[in-house]
Amino acid sequence: MTTNVQVLLANRPTGWVQESDFNIVETPVPEPRPGELLVRNHWLSLDPYMRGRMSAGKSYAASTEIGDVMPGGTVGEVIASHHPRFKVGQFVVGSLGWQQYATSSGEGLVVIDPKAVPLQAYLGAVGMPGGTAWIGLYEHCKPIAGETVVVSAASGAVGGVVGQLAKMQGCRTVGIAGGPAKCAYVVDELGFDACVDYKAGRLYEDLKAAVPNGIDCYFENVGGETMDTVFRLLNAFSRVALCGLIADYNTTEAYGVKMIRSLLVNRVNLRGFIVFDRPDLYQRAIPQLAQLVASGRIRYRETIAEGLHAAPRAFIGLLKGENFGKQLVKLS
Amino acid sequence: MTTNVQVLLANRPTGWVQESDFNIVETPVPEPRPGELLVRNHWLSLDPYMRGRMSAGKSYAASTEIGDVMPGGTVGEVIASHHPRFKVGQFVVGSLGWQQYATSSGEGLVVIDPKAVPLQAYLGAVGMPGGTAWIGLYEHCKPIAGETVVVSAASGAVGGVVGQLAKMQGCRTVGIAGGPAKCAYVVDELGFDACVDYKAGRLYEDLKAAVPNGIDCYFENVGGETMDTVFRLLNAFSRVALCGLIADYNTTEAYGVKMIRSLLVNRVNLRGFIVFDRPDLYQRAIPQLAQLVASGRIRYRETIAEGLHAAPRAFIGLLKGENFGKQLVKLS
Repeated sequence: MTTNVQVLLANRPTGWVQESDFNIVETPVPEPRPGELLVRNHWLSLDPYMRGRMSAGKSYAASTEIGDVMPGGTVGEVIASHHPRFKVGQFVVGSLGWQQYATSSGEGLVVIDPKAVPLQAYLGAVGMPGGTAWIGLYEHCKPIAGETVVVSAASGAVGGVVGQLAKMQGCRTVGIAGGPAKCAYVVDELGFDACVDYKAGRLYEDLKAAVPNGIDCYFENVGGETMDTVFRLLNAFSRVALCGLIADYNTTEAYGVKMIRSLLVNRVNLRGFIVFDRPDLYQRAIPQLAQLVASGRIRYRETIAEGLHAAPRAFIGLLKGENFGKQLVKLS
Repeated sequence: MTTNVQVLLANRPTGWVQESDFNIVETPVPEPRPGELLVRNHWLSLDPYMRGRMSAGKSYAASTEIGDVMPGGTVGEVIASHHPRFKVGQFVVGSLGWQQYATSSGEGLVVIDPKAVPLQAYLGAVGMPGGTAWIGLYEHCKPIAGETVVVSAASGAVGGVVGQLAKMQGCRTVGIAGGPAKCAYVVDELGFDACVDYKAGRLYEDLKAAVPNGIDCYFENVGGETMDTVFRLLNAFSRVALCGLIADYNTTEAYGVKMIRSLLVNRVNLRGFIVFDRPDLYQRAIPQLAQLVASGRIRYRETIAEGLHAAPRAFIGLLKGENFGKQLVKLS
């Protein structure tokens, strides 16, 4: 065991994140105290919500302080334990942050089966993104067979699962993604009925053609102009699951959404939600998602950055949509 | 019985409605055919939703055609009847439009008790506006005692009932209204805990001071900048009942709402709704509201225009917030 590598928050960004907003340091590997365990992280998840933690503004979770380790989901191996519930050699998923090694009291760590699905799937389709998709779709969108479900960021870690679950539910499933390669993947590999490339510059016309019966459920990951355009095609009594607004995360002034009137005249139910508010549903979702991934019924793609030194650049790429599928950092 | 007076839609307005968008005509009083009845209208209700009917754009109800009688809620007396369910001398509430006399098949007409509450109350607190308030508050906002409820257009026909019901429910109740006279009425006569005058130009600061514990329920009648400002003060798990967007009705481009992020981070449930979607709840609401009005527990104010010739000007005033309380036209 050599030194630990950690990525700290160096500055609060305004607008786009810069690599200089992070500070990568080498520190001694910590010693677990009585009751603690030591984990060697194998995988770090990069997710859009982390942008919120970098800001001081109010969000659903506390901001990360300057100089603190960046927060993030991890999968790792227990390499020392003074904790009765964890044994050396076990694998755990949790939020141990952007670092190679971490001690923990065990709170929030869950032991996982490394043979059921690939380790890093616990950070994607069988983890927080998959659980988010499950809860947003089944609890908030509540689609029924024959309805039309639209999901933005459709090739992403959340959107891809949303569309595949909606398809199983018997829905017409339409993705919105950036560029022909992502759209081809969404249709050909994930099995969506259609995908609209918002970068083609004809989002309204193309989406309208893809939803001949209008939109009953919209799973929103991006916000901004995409949201405004989708709102124009909502059906009466449609549902909007508001999961993310990545278009707004890096601007100093948010986009102004004009089509609020569509929410009124169509009697839309729009709901902001956070996966962690419903641990009851999360516990239902994860075993189902694990089975679906293991049996190949849910597929996903990964973009893997090698090592923590590559993490800041990969995170910036994620915010710009440069990744393809789930963005991970491989730590071992 | 002399001639009938009718107000027809003459033009579809763009932006603000003009008096020239209406055509006032005198026509023969119609003869009821077999199975029909003839009603002499005593009161006509003027409501913001009528602005939507004047436009060709998609809304929840079909547009009024050019040359048609303007639609509107009415209370009147049956003066001739070939219908088994209606007798001469009975009073009925329904949607017979901007006209003195109307024949009807009886569909949508409800016989009312002219002694229980004043006739015109069936167009206000004991009618569509009151039912809208009841459904939006109890079905969508669902406030519990101790929570804070904010309602815009608080001195209006809907907003005034919302606030009084919320107060009975044990909520801190805060109105938003235009000008010190309306605000004084909202607090002193309707019993709200506070009222913020949006015309004073300090809406965010004044509202923040009025909601020390944030906002749990927002009943929205106006939209635009007011909505954006209120969104900044929403609590986690708050509810927004989206009832009206009068600020947008007379503009060619709607206001862009920037604070969508607040709906996400606070896990807000926003719901557009229309009173007519829930006849089950409406039937529960109206007898309750009648009792509350009869016993003086729900109060309201009226602005009365005299005669159909005054209706266009009164309707334009309503859209500009010039009325005080329920806007009516007295037809007899």
